[in-house]
Amino acid sequence: MRSTDGYVKTIGETADRLIYDRDRTHRIGMPEAVFCLDKSVGDVALIVEHLVSSGVGPVLFTRMCQLQYDAAVNRSDAPLDYEPVSQTAFLNGSMAERNAHVGIVAAGTSDRPVALEAQRTLQFLGIASQLHIDVGVAGLWRLLDRVEELRRERVLIVVAGMDAALASVVGGLVGCPVIAVPTSTGYGAARNGETALNAMLASCAQGVVVTNIDNGFGAACAAARILAAT
Amino acid sequence: MRSTDGYVKTIGETADRLIYDRDRTHRIGMPEAVFCLDKSVGDVALIVEHLVSSGVGPVLFTRMCQLQYDAAVNRSDAPLDYEPVSQTAFLNGSMAERNAHVGIVAAGTSDRPVALEAQRTLQFLGIASQLHIDVGVAGLWRLLDRVEELRRERVLIVVAGMDAALASVVGGLVGCPVIAVPTSTGYGAARNGETALNAMLASCAQGVVVTNIDNGFGAACAAARILAAT
Amino acid sequence: MRSTDGYVKTIGETADRLIYDRDRTHRIGMPEAVFCLDKSVGDVALIVEHLVSSGVGPVLFTRMCQLQYDAAVNRSDAPLDYEPVSQTAFLNGSMAERNAHVGIVAAGTSDRPVALEAQRTLQFLGIASQLHIDVGVAGLWRLLDRVEELRRERVLIVVAGMDAALASVVGGLVGCPVIAVPTSTGYGAARNGETALNAMLASCAQGVVVTNIDNGFGAACAAARILAAT
Amino acid sequence: MRSTDGYVKTIGETADRLIYDRDRTHRIGMPEAVFCLDKSVGDVALIVEHLVSSGVGPVLFTRMCQLQYDAAVNRSDAPLDYEPVSQTAFLNGSMAERNAHVGIVAAGTSDRPVALEAQRTLQFLGIASQLHIDVGVAGLWRLLDRVEELRRERVLIVVAGMDAALASVVGGLVGCPVIAVPTSTGYGAARNGETALNAMLASCAQGVVVTNIDNGFGAACAAARILAAT
Amino acid sequence: MRSTDGYVKTIGETADRLIYDRDRTHRIGMPEAVFCLDKSVGDVALIVEHLVSSGVGPVLFTRMCQLQYDAAVNRSDAPLDYEPVSQTAFLNGSMAERNAHVGIVAAGTSDRPVALEAQRTLQFLGIASQLHIDVGVAGLWRLLDRVEELRRERVLIVVAGMDAALASVVGGLVGCPVIAVPTSTGYGAARNGETALNAMLASCAQGVVVTNIDNGFGAACAAARILAAT
Amino acid sequence: MRSTDGYVKTIGETADRLIYDRDRTHRIGMPEAVFCLDKSVGDVALIVEHLVSSGVGPVLFTRMCQLQYDAAVNRSDAPLDYEPVSQTAFLNGSMAERNAHVGIVAAGTSDRPVALEAQRTLQFLGIASQLHIDVGVAGLWRLLDRVEELRRERVLIVVAGMDAALASVVGGLVGCPVIAVPTSTGYGAARNGETALNAMLASCAQGVVVTNIDNGFGAACAAARILAAT
Amino acid sequence: MRSTDGYVKTIGETADRLIYDRDRTHRIGMPEAVFCLDKSVGDVALIVEHLVSSGVGPVLFTRMCQLQYDAAVNRSDAPLDYEPVSQTAFLNGSMAERNAHVGIVAAGTSDRPVALEAQRTLQFLGIASQLHIDVGVAGLWRLLDRVEELRRERVLIVVAGMDAALASVVGGLVGCPVIAVPTSTGYGAARNGETALNAMLASCAQGVVVTNIDNGFGAACAAARILAAT
Amino acid sequence: MRSTDGYVKTIGETADRLIYDRDRTHRIGMPEAVFCLDKSVGDVALIVEHLVSSGVGPVLFTRMCQLQYDAAVNRSDAPLDYEPVSQTAFLNGSMAERNAHVGIVAAGTSDRPVALEAQRTLQFLGIASQLHIDVGVAGLWRLLDRVEELRRERVLIVVAGMDAALASVVGGLVGCPVIAVPTSTGYGAARNGETALNAMLASCAQGVVVTNIDNGFGAACAAARILAAT
Repeated sequence: MRSTDGYVKTIGETADRLIYDRDRTHRIGMPEAVFCLDKSVGDVALIVEHLVSSGVGPVLFTRMCQLQYDAAVNRSDAPLDYEPVSQTAFLNGSMAERNAHVGIVAAGTSDRPVALEAQRTLQFLGIASQLHIDVGVAGLWRLLDRVEELRRERVLIVVAGMDAALASVVGGLVGCPVIAVPTSTGYGAARNGETALNAMLASCAQGVVVTNIDNGFGAACAAARILAAT
Repeated sequence: MRSTDGYVKTIGETADRLIYDRDRTHRIGMPEAVFCLDKSVGDVALIVEHLVSSGVGPVLFTRMCQLQYDAAVNRSDAPLDYEPVSQTAFLNGSMAERNAHVGIVAAGTSDRPVALEAQRTLQFLGIASQLHIDVGVAGLWRLLDRVEELRRERVLIVVAGMDAALASVVGGLVGCPVIAVPTSTGYGAARNGETALNAMLASCAQGVVVTNIDNGFGAACAAARILAAT
Repeated sequence: MRSTDGYVKTIGETADRLIYDRDRTHRIGMPEAVFCLDKSVGDVALIVEHLVSSGVGPVLFTRMCQLQYDAAVNRSDAPLDYEPVSQTAFLNGSMAERNAHVGIVAAGTSDRPVALEAQRTLQFLGIASQLHIDVGVAGLWRLLDRVEELRRERVLIVVAGMDAALASVVGGLVGCPVIAVPTSTGYGAARNGETALNAMLASCAQGVVVTNIDNGFGAACAAARILAAT
Repeated sequence: MRSTDGYVKTIGETADRLIYDRDRTHRIGMPEAVFCLDKSVGDVALIVEHLVSSGVGPVLFTRMCQLQYDAAVNRSDAPLDYEPVSQTAFLNGSMAERNAHVGIVAAGTSDRPVALEAQRTLQFLGIASQLHIDVGVAGLWRLLDRVEELRRERVLIVVAGMDAALASVVGGLVGCPVIAVPTSTGYGAARNGETALNAMLASCAQGVVVTNIDNGFGAACAAARILAAT
Repeated sequence: MRSTDGYVKTIGETADRLIYDRDRTHRIGMPEAVFCLDKSVGDVALIVEHLVSSGVGPVLFTRMCQLQYDAAVNRSDAPLDYEPVSQTAFLNGSMAERNAHVGIVAAGTSDRPVALEAQRTLQFLGIASQLHIDVGVAGLWRLLDRVEELRRERVLIVVAGMDAALASVVGGLVGCPVIAVPTSTGYGAARNGETALNAMLASCAQGVVVTNIDNGFGAACAAARILAAT
Repeated sequence: MRSTDGYVKTIGETADRLIYDRDRTHRIGMPEAVFCLDKSVGDVALIVEHLVSSGVGPVLFTRMCQLQYDAAVNRSDAPLDYEPVSQTAFLNGSMAERNAHVGIVAAGTSDRPVALEAQRTLQFLGIASQLHIDVGVAGLWRLLDRVEELRRERVLIVVAGMDAALASVVGGLVGCPVIAVPTSTGYGAARNGETALNAMLASCAQGVVVTNIDNGFGAACAAARILAAT
Repeated sequence: MRSTDGYVKTIGETADRLIYDRDRTHRIGMPEAVFCLDKSVGDVALIVEHLVSSGVGPVLFTRMCQLQYDAAVNRSDAPLDYEPVSQTAFLNGSMAERNAHVGIVAAGTSDRPVALEAQRTLQFLGIASQLHIDVGVAGLWRLLDRVEELRRERVLIVVAGMDAALASVVGGLVGCPVIAVPTSTGYGAARNGETALNAMLASCAQGVVVTNIDNGFGAACAAARILAAT
Repeated sequence: MRSTDGYVKTIGETADRLIYDRDRTHRIGMPEAVFCLDKSVGDVALIVEHLVSSGVGPVLFTRMCQLQYDAAVNRSDAPLDYEPVSQTAFLNGSMAERNAHVGIVAAGTSDRPVALEAQRTLQFLGIASQLHIDVGVAGLWRLLDRVEELRRERVLIVVAGMDAALASVVGGLVGCPVIAVPTSTGYGAARNGETALNAMLASCAQGVVVTNIDNGFGAACAAARILAAT
């Protein structure tokens, strides 16, 4: 992305032109989230201010870095519930709790930020979850010890980088929907998550579905669609 | 793949070593399917014969070309229910019908073989489906005319190649689980389905999940996992 | 690009060797623009000084970052009209206004710097424009509400990243020339804009043409060529 | 693409489900074209038969190979105007002639099928054109001899493979809209047209726009959009 | 590769110029093998004839297709021991048997040609082996049932395509050298074996080493180097 | 490339429009060559006929397959000197002999077609050469035995595929110009010659220059430029 | 990877959930190592503290940068033996010395950090080694001078970037196991180590095995597996 | 590349192990150059000190950044002749002047650092040169005005990024050796110089040879090899 020095000073004039998709919850059961990665610090602060003042319901912010959070709070004193590892913030609380539960399985500590993004998004959507970290297949017993627990979940999110073998192994052990999230951990042949992505897509376990690299948010939304469908 | 001339003559000696995963239906609710694309004509015939004689339950064959089907029937007179566009065959019937329904939406006629693979797999798994073809976004009204019908489905499979814009548009219109299947239709920048795959993964519609390119089978299995979870 | 520490101190000796293409407006109807991205801060300042002193007509600078702008103003007190979000500057004013209008459609706030580069370039070329932001297809009604307005434009520039589905949808709704600009927004499978680029090139909407990733300048120049041709 | 043996025998049952976008000429000024590359021989024959019997206006078929043409004529005795080098066919004549003209410039003989696809599509859309072949930059005088002629065109389509340098040179010499079509000629580093595509996108000539690799059809549609806009 | 029609008729004149590396067994413990994939049918026949007449010791031919084998036998009546699935041939017998054993583990039937190339190469090098097929991780029990047997091997070769998860799981279960061979089985995101290759290189199991895609020959040679080192 | 069935029947009408660059020998010291790979059988025959009848000097055809050669001879009884392994043909003899010599070094038998294309092109340009085949670095002594001979050449062409290590080793042993030609031999990670190409470009031996993959013709032309410059 | 500001403050709550694979030495002869590259500074400090307090045996940390080391020492006063070039640290000493020796050969000074990672990992595993640097093939005599010395090693690790020709040359000179480690040195066509990786995989020297780019740790573990197997 | 904090403190112990290839000038006519890009600041300073104290002849350093230069001068007071734009330094002067001249042609100001690296390397090798900047093909007259001047050179180096069309145009206008250097200027589809590289390799101008991206040093060494060969 291009640098966006000075972005703040012009957005002010056009902030009223932003079109927040207020109807989305009605259409698809989830509100529009604000993805902060490609937005300047100033933009995010203005968007938060705009949403605070316009009285929308709960809004989720993803990929909000500490600087963006600080700027938003400084500008509008917004009541943001911010969690820094997952880089998520809730504005105006979260959605009503549902009677639903999701299991999240992550291969290693490096995959934790993505797993937490999924968990926080689920929490925002009113869905409880249980996180299992450090169960990569190099120490297979760590996973096998939990198979019975995993089999009791209605949906599983599997988060893994590098070879992403965990998704195939889990997919062969359980019958519930398995949403695989490749992560950008690793180096060299891990190719910033592309290898994990492709390995999950080419998984020998049938019916595993996949999201974008590092997209814990998307996995949680998919889980919410599934739980709503049942 | 390497050519495999003569494969038939040696597989005979080792066919008894093939390990069909008979326990899979118990573990994940679906039997192991036999993927024929990388297998020689003779191999497929031998595997069919072996499965016929060993008395397993219903088995699905995918990517079975006409030559493989002919060889299998010639060798063992197997009761295969073969459908040539989807390149699928059922051995020993199919699974018990479930009270479940899936919508399949395909952008154009070129995507039809993949859409049919999904439909046939669903049929094998006991799940009814409705196929909507030629609803690509270049003629948006064709899709908008059917929105209400699509909103009544519990799961949607969206099949599209080239720009794969259909997945994003559908994902923004419905709240049920959306399983996107990229196809290898198109040329040049379509990159044999990679562009559709990446566009679906990077979709602006939240919670759309994706399968491998041309993987109608995988999409149907994912739908079955979802319907079983509900 | 290699780092270019110290570039300033040697360019001074050779600045008189730079060959500004003064004849370009005569040949193609637009002056040569100075692309600053791969140039050092010192180089840009020297080029500005050189152009100021040599008495050329209006010159457009693109991808000029704040540091380059500051250095140029410090060195030569050049009368630069700088806009920081689009990173554009006008030297010696702009070209004569034409009786022409262009519509610019951008999928989201993250695409705004590119859309503004197009708008500022059009302004430099004497062409008025209207900018429509936040009309991505995940909330399709935002676009459909404006179709009649868009159909009245003689040229449309469509700016979108990630899945770039907006270009296909717009291309199927209007008959005027559609210039699609992919942006580098998104992450993972968005592949720094390559997915949007390829999706636009493989668009199912016939006759959509494409520029380089993030190239708002090029889209505006193409629009100017079209408007001059009419 | 998967093989589609036997495709013919099932499409018959569903041909009535094909949705030809009859409204497209009204919306965008051009009818829907039928792209035959990813369709089986039998499918194309059925689509031709279906369109013949349903009484639509002029229809263009692109990437129709000789086998598909023969099958279509055998089945329905359709009045197809077929040209084999461009692999195009007109059903029910072509659109009304417009008072418009386009220049097509192609680097070498190998690029001729793509240039002819553009020319035939223009002819179908009622637009005359002049084709200039073998004017690649390795013999620059061949192009320079024709500059004045090219400058008189309202739109230029430039077709080139390998290094695609022709697009940049032409783009620097004329002020009219330049639509660049990369071709898949060449080998090795030509990468099946990707190098030409990227070189055209990264062209140093401002305002050159680009279509998909080998997409003469798309370039002609873009030219028609431009000529309609004027 | 370029087509090489007529290759036979000129190679005859220069066959005496071929330099077979007779010293290789002395230097590295294995003779030079003849890789037939990029050679014409006639070339292979001439090379066989040349080696037969020049009295070398045992020679291994890899990637020799049936046509090449037939031509070689027709021309020189060479005493080739040919195995068609692995596409290997032994000329003048094989090397002396060593007191050594290797385990070969393959994920599925589609990986069998590559596994057999490894097994035949080992046999040529005088090394016995045991082949385990159809032990992919989607049915994990098939592998776990054999762990004790695998732990008794001094070297393991793991052959797998698609997600290649088998290499990571095996690498985490045994302490002996693990040589991973990616195969080109699969489609789409399997990317002709690149995904398996990268997943094996990025494996979470420490100390797994990798060969080229489909390179059963190389894996066997590596095993021979290891067994010779002990 | 698209298929070009029927190409012959239309080229006849436009063959007089082909512009052979008769001035090229004057400008750059070498005539234009006709590259046949992307041309149909009929096109090549027509071009040969056209050149025969128009009385040009010597012309080189490259990548001319046997079918194209047969068609050309059948149509115009052209006096073509054809060599099938290199796929080259001379029309109207060759250029005057120069007092110059080039060494060609090829790693293995599989690289021979490319090495012969270089040798035949040199012969056409009047330059003698010596070919050294089977000197790949896996048997380093084969190369070291010839170092003194190679050091006496004024230009060396090095032809190698796969790892292309030969170019670096030769480049470190001699001081004359080294033109490296990557070949598409190998499989998997050889990536159709891209690995050899990149390895040659990234060679640790300084001043090695590189041509396109399999481009023996280009290497010979570069050698001719060098020899003419001296 | 996403930024992980603030990671420290939350990991504290879950550090007790980390599952260190204590059984790994029993299973595969080597303990689990902690890979620090994708972990935040705070995470690494917490993991060190956790391992110190829980009384495990020797632990190796790889890719630990100076900041991570400083934070770990500040927090827990851990007895870390840190070496900054290789970015490795030993906690609680190292494994018992084995009677084993490995040769490490590196092409140039730039490859030294990776070579040292291999050497330090071997030292941690109780294995002595000898490092040979600056023996790239551009100055072939530097390698040839040491051939006899290299032939006496039981295992060789070859570390090289750019063209990676060193691996092929060494592989053709010695018969012991050769573990090739590509490095990310070089620029442009070196493609961050991919070219070296592919060249090593496609090596003309038979039986060379390969690790991930820059993976000196993996090469050392592979050597340890080999030495344990003998 | 991995970070190499602390590299300085360990290299001291092993600096005596560096093997400078003193024999290279004798073998290939040029001394070994020290490539600084992948070396730490401390390493470069130590290497300079080592070379100063060991009394070698002239040594060229390339890609030496200002920090490395400052550290080297601080440590050893080495008599380095440093030029910051080209990032080159001469130690102990340069080689004897030859009676030779090279022309360097660069498309734009952004390509100047690479062009200067070529010029400085030539100067180090005793070869005079003339630099022509800002002659890109978008303003073709700038190049055509200089054709006669360029035709008088014995060797031409052409430096260009983005579409790299300049190399093809120059290659078609002159008969001397043309060494093309792609640069990493541009963005998006320029792909960090890969597009320029591939376009130069696939150039329609026969006999153009190519170096790595941004490799002005290599181009100058190739020119020196050519001039020495004459």
